[in-house]
Amino acid sequence: MKTADRMQGVHRSYIREILKVTARPEIISFAGGLPHPDSFPADRVAAAAAKVFAEEGASALQYSTTEGYAPLRKWIADRYARQGLTVSPDDILITTGSQQALDMAGRALLNRGDAVAIERPGYLGAIQCFSMYGADFKPVNLLATGVDTDMLDDVLERTGAKVFYAVPNFQNPSGISYDASTRHRVAELMARHECMLVEDNPYGELRFLGEDVPPVRCHMQTPSILLGSFSKMVAPGMRLGWIYAPDGLMDSLVRAKQASDLHTATLTQSILYRYLVDNDVDAHIASIRDRYKRHRDIMVASIRDHFPEEVATTEPEGGMFLWCTLPDSVSAEEVFKEAIRNNVAFVPGKPFYVDGTDNTFRLNFSNASPEKIEEGIARLGKCLRHCLS
Amino acid sequence: MKTADRMQGVHRSYIREILKVTARPEIISFAGGLPHPDSFPADRVAAAAAKVFAEEGASALQYSTTEGYAPLRKWIADRYARQGLTVSPDDILITTGSQQALDMAGRALLNRGDAVAIERPGYLGAIQCFSMYGADFKPVNLLATGVDTDMLDDVLERTGAKVFYAVPNFQNPSGISYDASTRHRVAELMARHECMLVEDNPYGELRFLGEDVPPVRCHMQTPSILLGSFSKMVAPGMRLGWIYAPDGLMDSLVRAKQASDLHTATLTQSILYRYLVDNDVDAHIASIRDRYKRHRDIMVASIRDHFPEEVATTEPEGGMFLWCTLPDSVSAEEVFKEAIRNNVAFVPGKPFYVDGTDNTFRLNFSNASPEKIEEGIARLGKCLRHCLS
Repeated sequence: MKTADRMQGVHRSYIREILKVTARPEIISFAGGLPHPDSFPADRVAAAAAKVFAEEGASALQYSTTEGYAPLRKWIADRYARQGLTVSPDDILITTGSQQALDMAGRALLNRGDAVAIERPGYLGAIQCFSMYGADFKPVNLLATGVDTDMLDDVLERTGAKVFYAVPNFQNPSGISYDASTRHRVAELMARHECMLVEDNPYGELRFLGEDVPPVRCHMQTPSILLGSFSKMVAPGMRLGWIYAPDGLMDSLVRAKQASDLHTATLTQSILYRYLVDNDVDAHIASIRDRYKRHRDIMVASIRDHFPEEVATTEPEGGMFLWCTLPDSVSAEEVFKEAIRNNVAFVPGKPFYVDGTDNTFRLNFSNASPEKIEEGIARLGKCLRHCLS
Repeated sequence: MKTADRMQGVHRSYIREILKVTARPEIISFAGGLPHPDSFPADRVAAAAAKVFAEEGASALQYSTTEGYAPLRKWIADRYARQGLTVSPDDILITTGSQQALDMAGRALLNRGDAVAIERPGYLGAIQCFSMYGADFKPVNLLATGVDTDMLDDVLERTGAKVFYAVPNFQNPSGISYDASTRHRVAELMARHECMLVEDNPYGELRFLGEDVPPVRCHMQTPSILLGSFSKMVAPGMRLGWIYAPDGLMDSLVRAKQASDLHTATLTQSILYRYLVDNDVDAHIASIRDRYKRHRDIMVASIRDHFPEEVATTEPEGGMFLWCTLPDSVSAEEVFKEAIRNNVAFVPGKPFYVDGTDNTFRLNFSNASPEKIEEGIARLGKCLRHCLS
């Protein structure tokens, strides 16, 4: 069967294939990117759903507007005000998870062959999605303080990239966050090179160490796009995210969304909104932060105990991921095979690079229990010692 | 702001713009395409939701597979067996409404400039969606018995169209259904011209007159795609549809879906499945059919009483729409203006054509009450007499 050319370069999600291998119950997996199910406020969402059916009945099951449920858009806009951002609800489009926000941004902005600057390593979902629109990726290294702004300046200068896609908070896969001066400098570079920043922020609310830093958007003089998600703040299975976009772009995004799925489910939007206004969301988020901090601390401590010194790891201040770098000569895919033999799993770093680097891997610390984290990291330490010797 | 080239030719949904004009409460509107809210089994969906939260808890809120909820895919496959189609659940991908099924088909199949045969008039959502992938539309006339197969043969011969998009049951906008011999002939032409049929069937369960005719797929010797939807069978606000695709295409569709929104909401899939297995779905569909037959009969009778003879109308055997053709010299957009002045609304036919025809319009009979239908058609009759005189 002859498929479209855009399907050629795009492989089935590497991570999903990995997850199939790692689904065996005896395996301790740090491979997925799942929030911990105990962090979902299931009872309260159930109560919100009951209330929606009782109060709204059939209207929660009818078609609704492409832009999204107006009170939910207002809730999002109001929450941005806390970060010092003035956002109109009209500038918010509700999406079917933030993956769709990425898709809408790609669809509205990218022509085949357009240069897109992206962090190195970069978020796999963005690489997959923008690949379908024919993005010509220009990777920019990540340092411990965020993207390498000198390299970004140079890449934008040389390639005239139309878009810079960035995850400035607790990035997936690296766990790295941009410090304040990196954010200022990125804002400046976007203006100088007339580049559109697509600032993805699924983990921003999950800071458990250090101080909150405002979004890059706060420093910008030029238009930019912000993506957000309820997946980590509430639950991913409702598929609710959003895109904030400047006025001149919203019309294109709404048309892209209409053609994609008409609108995001009326029912899930109503339930989520009910949940948000009937509950203390900040207290809920604080409980997730506490949980993930505990997980992260245990993973970091176990790594110090068990990993060989030659393996460098990030020690993130939030989010769900930690990133490991092996000596150049060691292949993470080889370590992965050894790890699977020893019933522990992670994601080799390769799919997060557009240039095939193979000496890194990602560890998720949100999903496994503290006991499993200790045991799994001990097993992994042994594998690493074996592979490095 | 410089948007992607694909956004250029695509206008914001004409119907949505029309709906804004027609939202005033004093207007009797036949413009939208909404199911009647009383046809939604809201209480039973509420009960299904309560059961899902009680029995599945957090797992109904977690990420899930791109392909969709396995029991729901099996339910759909089993239902196809009734129509004489042998379908494996593996050949079903759950989508965020059937609009997304269209989008996935377009994404997986179409390159910019590919010829796509489409009914004339054709479904607006497909025109919008395939336009984004650069489809070069080749319209094929609809007759009272379905698509004009001689013209289809000729168009496929001349243009080598890769895809033929069709809505063989109670088409939107025309209400026309393909008879059995047209279906046979379409199947034959697809094989002869190596064209991929995309058979869209959102209204197939809503037949209230005549006898069910099997899908074109039943007659085909070559691969084809079937799209389905729960929007009219249960409720549209859950945004649940599906795509049935031949083996060689499913991998591309799954990758397209991953890049689009990872997966459709776990929660809505679980609730819908619970609703489907806990209730007598056929009895529910029978009640929708009864309701819509009543609405349709009243609209048809009122049209006979009030419309001038020169206005030709279809008298559909199912679905939600009826189609009117004016004398060539009369513009439906002019009639629309007169109708709005008289507090009655419809959708002018123009956006359903890729060649700008302007002497047709669509009437929806599912959403307005029988009383409003009588009153609205009487008003519209007066407007037509005025415009035609």
